[in-house]
Amino acid sequence: MDSPPAIDVQLRVGFRHQVHITRRVFDRSNPLLASLLQTGARRCIAVIDSNVAQALPNIPEQLALYADTAGIELPLAPLVISGGERAKDGLHELERIYDAIESANLCRRSCVIAVGGGAVLDVAGFAAATAHRGVRLIRLPTTTLAQGDAGVGVKNGFNAFGKKNYIGTFAPPFAVVNDLEFLLTQPTRSKRSGLSEAVKVALIRDAAFFEWLEAHATQLRALDGDVVEELVCRTAKLHVQHIATAGDPFEFGAARPLDFGHWSAHKLEQMSNYALMHGEAVAIGIALDVLFSNAAGSLAAAGLNRVMAVLETIGFDLWSSELDHEEELLEGLEEFRQHLGGELTVTMLERIGSGIEIHQIDRASMRSCIHELRRRAFQRAAA
Amino acid sequence: MDSPPAIDVQLRVGFRHQVHITRRVFDRSNPLLASLLQTGARRCIAVIDSNVAQALPNIPEQLALYADTAGIELPLAPLVISGGERAKDGLHELERIYDAIESANLCRRSCVIAVGGGAVLDVAGFAAATAHRGVRLIRLPTTTLAQGDAGVGVKNGFNAFGKKNYIGTFAPPFAVVNDLEFLLTQPTRSKRSGLSEAVKVALIRDAAFFEWLEAHATQLRALDGDVVEELVCRTAKLHVQHIATAGDPFEFGAARPLDFGHWSAHKLEQMSNYALMHGEAVAIGIALDVLFSNAAGSLAAAGLNRVMAVLETIGFDLWSSELDHEEELLEGLEEFRQHLGGELTVTMLERIGSGIEIHQIDRASMRSCIHELRRRAFQRAAA
Repeated sequence: MDSPPAIDVQLRVGFRHQVHITRRVFDRSNPLLASLLQTGARRCIAVIDSNVAQALPNIPEQLALYADTAGIELPLAPLVISGGERAKDGLHELERIYDAIESANLCRRSCVIAVGGGAVLDVAGFAAATAHRGVRLIRLPTTTLAQGDAGVGVKNGFNAFGKKNYIGTFAPPFAVVNDLEFLLTQPTRSKRSGLSEAVKVALIRDAAFFEWLEAHATQLRALDGDVVEELVCRTAKLHVQHIATAGDPFEFGAARPLDFGHWSAHKLEQMSNYALMHGEAVAIGIALDVLFSNAAGSLAAAGLNRVMAVLETIGFDLWSSELDHEEELLEGLEEFRQHLGGELTVTMLERIGSGIEIHQIDRASMRSCIHELRRRAFQRAAA
Repeated sequence: MDSPPAIDVQLRVGFRHQVHITRRVFDRSNPLLASLLQTGARRCIAVIDSNVAQALPNIPEQLALYADTAGIELPLAPLVISGGERAKDGLHELERIYDAIESANLCRRSCVIAVGGGAVLDVAGFAAATAHRGVRLIRLPTTTLAQGDAGVGVKNGFNAFGKKNYIGTFAPPFAVVNDLEFLLTQPTRSKRSGLSEAVKVALIRDAAFFEWLEAHATQLRALDGDVVEELVCRTAKLHVQHIATAGDPFEFGAARPLDFGHWSAHKLEQMSNYALMHGEAVAIGIALDVLFSNAAGSLAAAGLNRVMAVLETIGFDLWSSELDHEEELLEGLEEFRQHLGGELTVTMLERIGSGIEIHQIDRASMRSCIHELRRRAFQRAAA
């Protein structure tokens, strides 16, 4: 540059990020929600995932009683938003949330209480982050995936142009409340699906947690309540610690280690038209990138086998028919690069508990890994 | 709270905020834009205010030549967006910008170059801040208002539910380039309008700058080019310094001193259906709050008279028929409170160069100030 900028300053912005773990958050004897709302305006709206509203039809009534006891204003009945990926497709549900925020006259210190799975939290989070340039958001994730991962992060978004999370922001929520009892309402398939993010974060950050997952894989297969709860709490903590300490919570750089296994997962979900759940796709994505890490010489064969074993024992299917469309799947690498921009940066495994960034993926090798995944799937099916 | 959060971390995010001052930014001999684009992907789209496109019909051609010389990819022709407040009304122009970002395949390191007045920069800024959760934005403000104030800040947004900037985010741009020659294309009325933000920021932050404004008020009335340029540069610097040093760039608190005079200005603009320009409304808003500051005993009469004199000498009309609707105007106080939430916090003047926050506005006193404004306007008209 010829001359320095006339004005050149550094803006520093701090965000508190708190995750509470509780049970029966809407029970009138539970002071948590009331105390979280003590510092702001006491006016709220509730946005509830249709899957949760169906499993717990008493929520609106409970919430009304709770609000009454705690002196919280709830000017509107809870807004029920389509659960799952439909929540995020297009503007429909987003506009309903904006309408509710506006008609309830929320201000920046009022609060959107969002109860649901990751997709509902994402769209409610986008609405909350952008109305008045940000009203408060309390997330109450209800699934293993959301309590361990999506719901404790700092992102929101919705899908546009057929691309997942094409539009969104970075916006730390005012608070996250993991109510472990919500997990009891989650259907089996979805509950298992969320466990793959625990495997992911263990693989890149915490070998001891991976050993714990191995030791409890059979109980996880049975979806043992206590073990699932412990998994969720440890996973949430690892995710938040990573966001807080890795130095780049808003992803200004090109690295995104928490997306280990995700380049293919995002693409597989999209290719399946979201018939594959996110966590199911992530399990396959982990398997694929673990095979690649081994083929590329970074991860030893013993490590590879341990990862495949833990995923299979937990009950993940490590194959899906979308993998047959190799070329389309490999386009996911370019979409992954493009989202962050700059050089392709994919995390692979150096060893269990430690990721390594690579900037080139040899497509022929990746194709071989897909073939190997197919071979293993057939072998298991035949066994 | 009964028990502390299970997870409680502080996220720290730093943003560089740079404003460059230049001339003939699209001249191939000017290296600035090329050097700004050196660190990212070299793919850009340009979004141009229709007022600018009309005044400078060669811009697309110039830009194409510049891009060619500098090795910048411009996959699309510049997108022309309705200038003025229409840019921000509803989703229409926003969706056109999203479409362009997507069809040009921009990534997070690619760049939206937005050229125009505050409204166009606001909507382009929102699109850039939310596509891929943030592609780069280079703002080229073209008006006195945008170069001194709106274009050098960290906000974006668009109007919804009939409320100005109801939806938006805080998102520091990648860079701002104030090309002073753009000011030559600005119509007289709009050019004068932008000068009121200089008076505002001088009043709350810099008594010496206010004295400079007094000393140059006659030249400003004549819209003398050199004096207007100096005003714009000093105003931009004061605004950015305030954002960087006042400790709350993303407005987490309830104070917003840069909005001195704005509670009524926003409401007057809206009541006039945007027939009043923002800066014109701000001049009236300053006059009203200066009268109030004096009536409330904080600002001395000598100070009051100096402010009224400088605004009148520059050529502002300190009355508009919307002021006759006193009750509707006073609702602007509640809308102002609501946008930030919490307690009402309005900046008034303690003395020239220094604001003071107050939390209550006596409506009867404010009505008297409106009457005093009317009396002065009639007196001037009769003189």
